[in-house]
Amino acid sequence: MKKNEITILGAGLIGSLMAIYLKRQGLDVTVYDKRPDKRKTPYFEGGRSINMALSHRGWKSLEQVGLKDKVLPLAIPMFGRKIHDEHGGTSFIPYGKKEQAIYSISRGKFNQLLAEEAENLGAKFNFEHKCEEVNFPSQEITFSTPEGPFKLQAPVIVGADGAYSALRLSMQKQVRFNYKQEYLTHGYKELTIPATAAGEFAMDPNALHIWPRGKFMLIALPNPDKSFTCTLFLPFEGTKVCFEKITDERDLKSVFSNYFDDAYQLMPDLVDEFFRNPTSALVNVDCYPWVQGESLLIGDASHAMVPFYGQGMNCGFEDCYILNGLIDKLGTNSWDLVFEKFQKTRKRDTDAICQLAMENFIEMRDSVADPKFLLRKKIEAKLHELYPNDWIPLYTMVTFSDISYSEAYAQGKLQEAIMDRVMADPLITENWNKLDYEEIIFQMETAKAV
Amino acid sequence: MKKNEITILGAGLIGSLMAIYLKRQGLDVTVYDKRPDKRKTPYFEGGRSINMALSHRGWKSLEQVGLKDKVLPLAIPMFGRKIHDEHGGTSFIPYGKKEQAIYSISRGKFNQLLAEEAENLGAKFNFEHKCEEVNFPSQEITFSTPEGPFKLQAPVIVGADGAYSALRLSMQKQVRFNYKQEYLTHGYKELTIPATAAGEFAMDPNALHIWPRGKFMLIALPNPDKSFTCTLFLPFEGTKVCFEKITDERDLKSVFSNYFDDAYQLMPDLVDEFFRNPTSALVNVDCYPWVQGESLLIGDASHAMVPFYGQGMNCGFEDCYILNGLIDKLGTNSWDLVFEKFQKTRKRDTDAICQLAMENFIEMRDSVADPKFLLRKKIEAKLHELYPNDWIPLYTMVTFSDISYSEAYAQGKLQEAIMDRVMADPLITENWNKLDYEEIIFQMETAKAV
Repeated sequence: MKKNEITILGAGLIGSLMAIYLKRQGLDVTVYDKRPDKRKTPYFEGGRSINMALSHRGWKSLEQVGLKDKVLPLAIPMFGRKIHDEHGGTSFIPYGKKEQAIYSISRGKFNQLLAEEAENLGAKFNFEHKCEEVNFPSQEITFSTPEGPFKLQAPVIVGADGAYSALRLSMQKQVRFNYKQEYLTHGYKELTIPATAAGEFAMDPNALHIWPRGKFMLIALPNPDKSFTCTLFLPFEGTKVCFEKITDERDLKSVFSNYFDDAYQLMPDLVDEFFRNPTSALVNVDCYPWVQGESLLIGDASHAMVPFYGQGMNCGFEDCYILNGLIDKLGTNSWDLVFEKFQKTRKRDTDAICQLAMENFIEMRDSVADPKFLLRKKIEAKLHELYPNDWIPLYTMVTFSDISYSEAYAQGKLQEAIMDRVMADPLITENWNKLDYEEIIFQMETAKAV
Repeated sequence: MKKNEITILGAGLIGSLMAIYLKRQGLDVTVYDKRPDKRKTPYFEGGRSINMALSHRGWKSLEQVGLKDKVLPLAIPMFGRKIHDEHGGTSFIPYGKKEQAIYSISRGKFNQLLAEEAENLGAKFNFEHKCEEVNFPSQEITFSTPEGPFKLQAPVIVGADGAYSALRLSMQKQVRFNYKQEYLTHGYKELTIPATAAGEFAMDPNALHIWPRGKFMLIALPNPDKSFTCTLFLPFEGTKVCFEKITDERDLKSVFSNYFDDAYQLMPDLVDEFFRNPTSALVNVDCYPWVQGESLLIGDASHAMVPFYGQGMNCGFEDCYILNGLIDKLGTNSWDLVFEKFQKTRKRDTDAICQLAMENFIEMRDSVADPKFLLRKKIEAKLHELYPNDWIPLYTMVTFSDISYSEAYAQGKLQEAIMDRVMADPLITENWNKLDYEEIIFQMETAKAV
């Protein structure tokens, strides 16, 4: 079997970027996807996919294949979180330094751009090919297609087929495959704030809007057409405000006017959208090994995470970047070596970001509403300004740096413990500007040395 | 659809006992299994299934359907653990009181007895029916059979189809199904100590023999034909003694003569068996919910555990017992109610026994070799003798009582903490007979009240 024939499962964002990387390595690349080709049969995309936030790891991976400039026009910078309280008041918490932003981008056009780029480089795309089974000893894939079953000998397989990966399901039936799928008790529903009658954004477009309400929240990200895609996160059942208890227009209006009134005023299609769009679930996937024979899982297929750190796509793109680096180093003659090295080095990082994404849900829906949270962010920003290399806020390490997720996680926990002590001072609100910042850095260095 | 037509997936021990219970409830029961009927095509059973240890929860479930007396002749009582040290010395640790035993039983004949009993009561068995998919909205099962695919409308489905359950796999594809399969880094291999030339047991038949060696161990359970089924538990790879490093006769003989010499002398077929029998993996399965529509998972399908507490089968039998109790109480008109009640009350107990089984691996392969462990057991036995209702050793609660696994777990952790304190006395070996037992009970009652 020819080791330069690569089969990619999944023509989504990660599969398409992987195809670009592998074509640039001079390999034969064929991509299979179960969905129809969106360019030929455009289908309803709304209601299922949270808008994405492209940040440093994503940009770095796009830049390496020369795509940064092509993607920028699709993306809207968001420089911080705009918090909406229950009375319509707002406050702004910057994500990092003044010029640092994450970029709102919606899946459709972005995916198309990447797939076309891959095709231009010579990758072949086959749609309406649903992977039913992979036989690992023979590396044979069975697809179902509108024309019936189709069997393919695939010497090297990369599974970028998402959270419900078919490649992973075949791996799961192998002995000694550790696997965990864990659903949150919360679900989500997509809604829209359209452009105003004057054709303008109805709110500040350069922020990620959050309505944090403790156990639940609403968020909104800007789109190039001047609308916002909103996502409502509620418990499925069991609490006062939950999807199960919103059964009619009255329930819905009562929840929105009570908790999200300023947004509600901007949502003329709320009732229609709410009852038309599906309520979707949120899953975290953890599995290992990612390699079986000459097959490898990447992206959500190996580490689907909850969306609360905005890192799912960025992490998947970084998977491509790192895998490409290993190919540069080890060549394409022994994929088992490349794949083994990839999973060995990468797993600890994806574990860290999955964990952080879970923890950030509580921050987004609850902590951000606390004035102390804002103060905490300010103190950390000050520390970072004074000691740019010694104190980097966790969010900055994850979002605006190359520091591995696992290092960011460990350093973040250290900083968190020190900040907990700083914030425990009952007079912190008054005294924060007089803090001994050098002493805080010293504490951190000491804790690190232990 | 008729709610009195029950389809059971899996004709193993749990599926067959479930069929007996449901026939006795006056229901129509059909059992499907992917394997051939063993009565018609006996197949090689050796090498894969650890001998089982039937204890109170198992016996209670058999007794309720009048089967205790029929099963007893197949079972050999083991009154305690016989520990073999590296120099051939042995010691005996009773499991409970003098008359309390767990019973060694092998799968084959026992399974046949249960299946025949179910058939005699009118249950229908269909072999060579492999469940490929269950469609929950329509409750339609697709089987593959030697004659081709076969579709069945099944109003009520009970999945007793084991650790690799097909029903569970279909459930896993449903949204909000939480699932975890976790493999141990250890594997196992079955071996044999045959009867002596004189046709006798080569060791004491009324004990479970253990050769604890820290990171690995060998165990042996007696069979009615006067042989012992031995199971060798080793890490798959990565340590000095592991399966990966036993590649030829010389490696094997070196491990056995170094670590298990007394057993080795009794194993004339060791080399053949070792290289012929498969090395099997050990998996723990945790999932929830167990119910989807009118389908329910029971036994290993819902909570496969590692074998180190000897409770896998007993717990599965107790599932049948408890489900039957709920049917007595709630009737057979609303299976959703019965199934919901079952999963709600049972999950915490199966979580507890899965956890205990994992923890007991360390006890079996390591702690039992410590003289202090023997002393600890003695002190606990004494406490139990003096205060039979206030202090029941954990092993006794799990193995010889009806106390729910979750209560046993909680009470066991409490007792463990107190025993840790008792054993921390550096002179405990000398002083144990002079302990203030009343004070220990008082400590426990106080801790419990908190």
